[in-house]
Amino acid sequence: MAASKRLNSLDWSFLAGETRESMMHVGGLMTFVPPDDAPADFLRQLMDEVRADTNVQSPWNLKLRHPDLLTHPLQSWVEDRNFDVEYHVRRSALPTPGDERELGILVSRLHSHNLDFHRPPWEVHFIEGLEGGRFAIYFKVHHALVDGYTGIKILSRSMSHTAEARDTPLFYLIPPPPRPPRTRKEDPAPTLEALWQGVQGQLDVSRSAVNALMAVIRSARKQDHQLVAPMQAPLSPLNQKISRNRRFATQQFPVERLKRVARAGGGTLNDVVLALCAGSLRRFLDEQGSLPAQPLTAMLPVNVRPKDDPGGGNAVGAILASLATDEPGAVQRLQAIIESTGHAKEQLQGMSKNAIMQFSQMLMAPMLLSMLPGAAGRVRPAFNVAISNVPGPENPLYFRGFRLDSYFPLSIPFKGYALNITVVSYAQTLNFGFIGCRDALPHLQRLAVYSREALEDLEAALGLEPAGEA
Amino acid sequence: MAASKRLNSLDWSFLAGETRESMMHVGGLMTFVPPDDAPADFLRQLMDEVRADTNVQSPWNLKLRHPDLLTHPLQSWVEDRNFDVEYHVRRSALPTPGDERELGILVSRLHSHNLDFHRPPWEVHFIEGLEGGRFAIYFKVHHALVDGYTGIKILSRSMSHTAEARDTPLFYLIPPPPRPPRTRKEDPAPTLEALWQGVQGQLDVSRSAVNALMAVIRSARKQDHQLVAPMQAPLSPLNQKISRNRRFATQQFPVERLKRVARAGGGTLNDVVLALCAGSLRRFLDEQGSLPAQPLTAMLPVNVRPKDDPGGGNAVGAILASLATDEPGAVQRLQAIIESTGHAKEQLQGMSKNAIMQFSQMLMAPMLLSMLPGAAGRVRPAFNVAISNVPGPENPLYFRGFRLDSYFPLSIPFKGYALNITVVSYAQTLNFGFIGCRDALPHLQRLAVYSREALEDLEAALGLEPAGEA
Repeated sequence: MAASKRLNSLDWSFLAGETRESMMHVGGLMTFVPPDDAPADFLRQLMDEVRADTNVQSPWNLKLRHPDLLTHPLQSWVEDRNFDVEYHVRRSALPTPGDERELGILVSRLHSHNLDFHRPPWEVHFIEGLEGGRFAIYFKVHHALVDGYTGIKILSRSMSHTAEARDTPLFYLIPPPPRPPRTRKEDPAPTLEALWQGVQGQLDVSRSAVNALMAVIRSARKQDHQLVAPMQAPLSPLNQKISRNRRFATQQFPVERLKRVARAGGGTLNDVVLALCAGSLRRFLDEQGSLPAQPLTAMLPVNVRPKDDPGGGNAVGAILASLATDEPGAVQRLQAIIESTGHAKEQLQGMSKNAIMQFSQMLMAPMLLSMLPGAAGRVRPAFNVAISNVPGPENPLYFRGFRLDSYFPLSIPFKGYALNITVVSYAQTLNFGFIGCRDALPHLQRLAVYSREALEDLEAALGLEPAGEA
Repeated sequence: MAASKRLNSLDWSFLAGETRESMMHVGGLMTFVPPDDAPADFLRQLMDEVRADTNVQSPWNLKLRHPDLLTHPLQSWVEDRNFDVEYHVRRSALPTPGDERELGILVSRLHSHNLDFHRPPWEVHFIEGLEGGRFAIYFKVHHALVDGYTGIKILSRSMSHTAEARDTPLFYLIPPPPRPPRTRKEDPAPTLEALWQGVQGQLDVSRSAVNALMAVIRSARKQDHQLVAPMQAPLSPLNQKISRNRRFATQQFPVERLKRVARAGGGTLNDVVLALCAGSLRRFLDEQGSLPAQPLTAMLPVNVRPKDDPGGGNAVGAILASLATDEPGAVQRLQAIIESTGHAKEQLQGMSKNAIMQFSQMLMAPMLLSMLPGAAGRVRPAFNVAISNVPGPENPLYFRGFRLDSYFPLSIPFKGYALNITVVSYAQTLNFGFIGCRDALPHLQRLAVYSREALEDLEAALGLEPAGEA
């Protein structure tokens, strides 16, 4: 029986935005620590298993009906009857010494290749040769098929909470749950996806997105919008054309270490996350002589309680926060960030749900615009960088006895937004994924190093004892 | 000083032919055997050296002036002032066990990615993790920048004839020779490139290629051409649309082993090469129930002596040969091939140089047509597969003490021509590179295995002693 599934307008917009340079796939990088009794040829055995069972489940068996015209008006997902499992599931290896640097280089390369729309648009790479007997999984999937946050949830479901379970199935062999398991009302996660989904209702991207977006922009320019106009972001190397190639860097911290800073300095965990990004970006841009005099601004998705929601539930809104990169002092910078995010959230909380969405839409408009063909470059950036802090699995996960050690997200750089920072929490750690354009940001990996230094600077300035190795 | 170089019309035609599915890059795979005193971190040291010296020489520093419109009327090569050496020169590693199969999988993947036209269109990959302490070099280059045969010559120049030389430079750091070293009149090598170059004079591809080619086709169809019309090739899985993904397989034989067969069976070394391809293709297609009743035909470039050349020099022409795949007997198949190539070459030798070119042009027209946008699928294939047998370096070569063990070419599959077989001779071996579309030819690697079996069948049928391991 041929499955066929229409795309919703959000999915459609990710196809419409796909170009050779702005690729709309998201990804994740997971590293695993072996159990004492790990077989030396674990990944080879796994590949034998991959070849033996090709009963791939939805949505992993779906491909586009019109792969050569992504914006085809009758675009839909259809089952791939020639599913070629060895195309989608691959083994790779790291050159010596198999350290984080080599892993970053390999994953940067893999993330730079566009997906093949003539097949289900996803790939998984089992990567061997990491130091310490570890291995890694890198996966990528087009945002039109699965968003990053759902990807995390699906991958979590395919892992176990105990080291003893050795029969954990491969994620693409797990049938989708019969219906969404909404037993209780949950707050939405503050992801870019949730934001996009929210503003989608206002826009109807599939029909006249450009017109609707341009109306928002014009309104903001004329200052006649009833809400606060986006801050004017300074020009910076973060906001330029992007090429098709990527650089990726990672950093992991214990949650407790950042919480200690939040307790000493005031503010939330998220404020400290922003302060680390800010300290890192300040040094990064300063070193190349391109630190703007005005502070950089970040756009971030947040959970807010609208004033008119009868159920008392939360909504996801977008705020702009100053990163206070003009401020040399680490503590002063953190204070400025706390003040900025506090003010922005307060403003949002005074709004109705509808107004939150209109406001978020306005803030995100330049990024949405940059996804539409021909629209890029017509508008100034309203912010410099998108930073997301997304909740991930709370407890340690295992894949056949191998402990999941880290989970690093790879989000989407856009035209005009050459850097994306996404942070995922996992088992009392925060995992930073810095993804950017190879040419716009030639030394991107330094951002990961400098974020650690920013944390050390903050700890020192706040008079905290130096922390042990994260 | 800005270098700028116009493209000749042949180079231009390779840009015009570039699509996501039909990529016009060629490549080579070289494996190296270590000396006894090889440093364990040889490739890491090499990468340090790569990063230290970025004085890249022409043509390796040239990129297109109009990368977003390959067929731009003012297209030219310009110097890349931001040359990013670590983009072009890369380290990779093989998963365990690091055998030929894993090497084939990695190189198939690397060859499936299109080149970035915003940079000089070439890449080199140093591949570690091969069995026996060996390493490999895979390189790819767009045919518009360097053709495969020239690529072989340039790489040979960057190697040494002795194991003692340890200062062999990297090929892209060697300045181009001041002028072509034509000290004596050499026969042209019978390559696809030489053929293309030859027919180019007749066509002027850059101006009205479609019209000129269609005239040739119409003439062939009406049977009013004074030369023999192309044989009607049977339909086969080799002649279908291709996807963007490749499979690559390799095989190496001692030249002497094939010569022994040629002596016993009659015919030339090239006839035996064709017989191995024929035996392999017969079994390959038969196993999937798609062996045509009519014999497959191959198009091959050959050296011929035109009747009117006053200097007595050779020209490169194209012939069609039957692969006699309808013939079950190995010796009978070889005999039929010998007869077919003999007849075709005889015919060519009776022609003037001009007529040879017209004839070759006619035979190659469908392949040339398939390179032009919009033209594919309008013509039946005039042959089933292109097979080239190209002379390579005669004596063993070394790179810093590592002995070059094999050199496998990767040529271009086209729309309608899903398989290409190219053979390069090197130091008394013949190196077969089978490159094809991953989807049209799902088990392509069997062709390499079956070519060895075809040789064993021929040896047995001719009553020759079994040969030792090649």
